[in-house]
Amino acid sequence: MLSKPQLDSPIFVEGLPGFGNVGKTAGQLIIEFTHANVFAELYSPSFPDYVSVDKSGLAVPPKYDLHAATLGKTQFLIMSGDVQPSREDVVAHYLLCDTVLDFLAQYNCKFVVTMAGLTTPKPAGEVYVAATSTDLAAKAVEKGAVLYGGGRILGAAGLLLGLAKLRNWEGMCLLGSTTGLKADREAAYSVFRLLMRMFGTEPPPNNLPEDKKPE
Amino acid sequence: MLSKPQLDSPIFVEGLPGFGNVGKTAGQLIIEFTHANVFAELYSPSFPDYVSVDKSGLAVPPKYDLHAATLGKTQFLIMSGDVQPSREDVVAHYLLCDTVLDFLAQYNCKFVVTMAGLTTPKPAGEVYVAATSTDLAAKAVEKGAVLYGGGRILGAAGLLLGLAKLRNWEGMCLLGSTTGLKADREAAYSVFRLLMRMFGTEPPPNNLPEDKKPE
Amino acid sequence: MLSKPQLDSPIFVEGLPGFGNVGKTAGQLIIEFTHANVFAELYSPSFPDYVSVDKSGLAVPPKYDLHAATLGKTQFLIMSGDVQPSREDVVAHYLLCDTVLDFLAQYNCKFVVTMAGLTTPKPAGEVYVAATSTDLAAKAVEKGAVLYGGGRILGAAGLLLGLAKLRNWEGMCLLGSTTGLKADREAAYSVFRLLMRMFGTEPPPNNLPEDKKPE
Amino acid sequence: MLSKPQLDSPIFVEGLPGFGNVGKTAGQLIIEFTHANVFAELYSPSFPDYVSVDKSGLAVPPKYDLHAATLGKTQFLIMSGDVQPSREDVVAHYLLCDTVLDFLAQYNCKFVVTMAGLTTPKPAGEVYVAATSTDLAAKAVEKGAVLYGGGRILGAAGLLLGLAKLRNWEGMCLLGSTTGLKADREAAYSVFRLLMRMFGTEPPPNNLPEDKKPE
Repeated sequence: MLSKPQLDSPIFVEGLPGFGNVGKTAGQLIIEFTHANVFAELYSPSFPDYVSVDKSGLAVPPKYDLHAATLGKTQFLIMSGDVQPSREDVVAHYLLCDTVLDFLAQYNCKFVVTMAGLTTPKPAGEVYVAATSTDLAAKAVEKGAVLYGGGRILGAAGLLLGLAKLRNWEGMCLLGSTTGLKADREAAYSVFRLLMRMFGTEPPPNNLPEDKKPE
Repeated sequence: MLSKPQLDSPIFVEGLPGFGNVGKTAGQLIIEFTHANVFAELYSPSFPDYVSVDKSGLAVPPKYDLHAATLGKTQFLIMSGDVQPSREDVVAHYLLCDTVLDFLAQYNCKFVVTMAGLTTPKPAGEVYVAATSTDLAAKAVEKGAVLYGGGRILGAAGLLLGLAKLRNWEGMCLLGSTTGLKADREAAYSVFRLLMRMFGTEPPPNNLPEDKKPE
Repeated sequence: MLSKPQLDSPIFVEGLPGFGNVGKTAGQLIIEFTHANVFAELYSPSFPDYVSVDKSGLAVPPKYDLHAATLGKTQFLIMSGDVQPSREDVVAHYLLCDTVLDFLAQYNCKFVVTMAGLTTPKPAGEVYVAATSTDLAAKAVEKGAVLYGGGRILGAAGLLLGLAKLRNWEGMCLLGSTTGLKADREAAYSVFRLLMRMFGTEPPPNNLPEDKKPE
Repeated sequence: MLSKPQLDSPIFVEGLPGFGNVGKTAGQLIIEFTHANVFAELYSPSFPDYVSVDKSGLAVPPKYDLHAATLGKTQFLIMSGDVQPSREDVVAHYLLCDTVLDFLAQYNCKFVVTMAGLTTPKPAGEVYVAATSTDLAAKAVEKGAVLYGGGRILGAAGLLLGLAKLRNWEGMCLLGSTTGLKADREAAYSVFRLLMRMFGTEPPPNNLPEDKKPE
């Protein structure tokens, strides 16, 4: 814990690696757009057993960064990171996601948004939605999302949503349509825009640096 | 726990995925036939780390549903579900099955029936039986089952039976003969009928909706 | 625990499945020769998650059987079984072997003999030995064993010996030379004879039923 | 624990198996050069489940040896061993490394040096460095190291460094450039020399026995 932010009932947003890196990239876009600050780091023994070394030779163990931001009347608590637990260590993954939710509960958070890629043969910028209630899914559809009509959501994006539901929290997963074959900035951008639109703030397309705009 | 049913010494029936999906399908047939109601849900960190999304976009974590039903003088406590723990996480599987048995013990349950598929080259509707005693196996053979003369029963169908035996409970596994290459509704139906016959109630073949009858 | 035998400082003998099934078969020969009786069963959640079904349709979970026997002045505590924990679940294997040693400590056991197969290109009935002291290895060599001059002993046969050494117990592993390609009764018989010889009782070759004698 | 050495704030040096066996071999060179003595052994249930047998038939479970040495004003606590936990059991690896650091904390150790191989297409004796601070990395570069400009350090060499950093200790990893295709004594020697140079003692090349000098 680096500092204790004044957060009350923030929207939790998760952006971790996965298909087309959509979730992670969308998370980065939100962090940049909202000028969010890191206020805590999360380490776990179920993260991979290596350290990452950056360009300046600094060694850092795998971690999740927790950022705080305010946009109009909405507070965001955004989690970014470079890793997910091994898909073989399922129990560890459940425990880790539960730890994250316990952490969020401290801030009276009751709403989680997870983001991921959904592999489709011909992605055309669609953002699919699955949610903890049909009302909430409908709300996302109103803003331009497509209902995710059956399937699975793998990893933290699925598990955080599922475990939040068991706590009677609300939440949704936004899935950017992607081939999954390459890092898909365009899909991430679509997810980012839809999320912002849902919380009342449409980001002007020109607001982002040139190299970050999708075609 | 959704509600607390009035169950005393029910027969426990397990129907989970496996070879030819026989166990799961037989469980569904019993649930439909007995008009059983879900009264509890079981979640476990050893279930797969994803959520399932249904046709209406609702996200649900993997779970087992526990149903209660009464048929004549017999009470049933039926467990259905879409998943089994990973076969690599053996310890978790033992603990999960033990948790299920602890749950059953609350209702004074001392009798478990597990259901599974048994892959055979030319299945012809046989239902094999293995049991915690030769008497019980003989009773099933009287009703038309074939003695399972040596082998193994994998997963929850085997483990629940084995751990029940260690608690000095009674139980048996009914194995529908199947090629295992496709979902085998016919094998499931044979298992379902044999089970009903053992507990005094032969389901009339016409009792089921048209599309559910095997050829 | 089925009964509590009058054992004091018995020799522990382990015979579990492995290369050429040498350890397990040698264990069975000792059990038959000493007319040992099962007095306890050991179950573990790190055993495979299935039940075995025997010819009469009886379902039994995987277990280790603990047998007691007396031969002259020597008491034996023999452990047999059909399974070993998965080689992937290393921690479970350590814990299981430690549990076995804790169990032995109740009987003041301080001497463990493990048995295994050692794959060699042209096995000719040699029995290799590794031990917790050079003295003990020399004693086995005197009785006809060959010094195992460097290598590894996998699984329970190695681990029980190693963990016994950490408790300052004595022990040795007898490794029957085998191709490992088939169940090797001859190698098991060599191990069995050497073990008996070390504890003062050479089994007469004709003492075993016809079908059990090696060529 | 074999004996309790008079160590205060020693430099911890880790040398375990890995690419080109560079870390392990460098550790052995340091142990020989400093005439370090084993004062403790570390055993873990996450080590492989076998025993090693040496040339005299002695069976020994896998372990880490902890050595103490003094060189001028610097004390060293050197850890050597033949194994690392399975890369699949990530949680065990974190716990083991944490146990090592807890052990070091008893001696007021706050500085860890890990050693490993870094696979490069054409190794030419370079030693790369990653560290817990840019200052420390610069110090190693001054002595001839090359900055490791981005990547990962796998296994204990990475994890010990990363977890030390989380405790606000200092540390660095020295990575000897190697093809990784064979045991690379030359790379290990380069790492060894750089480490000695950093702590004020350049080993004269002729100081080592003939067969230990690289070409």
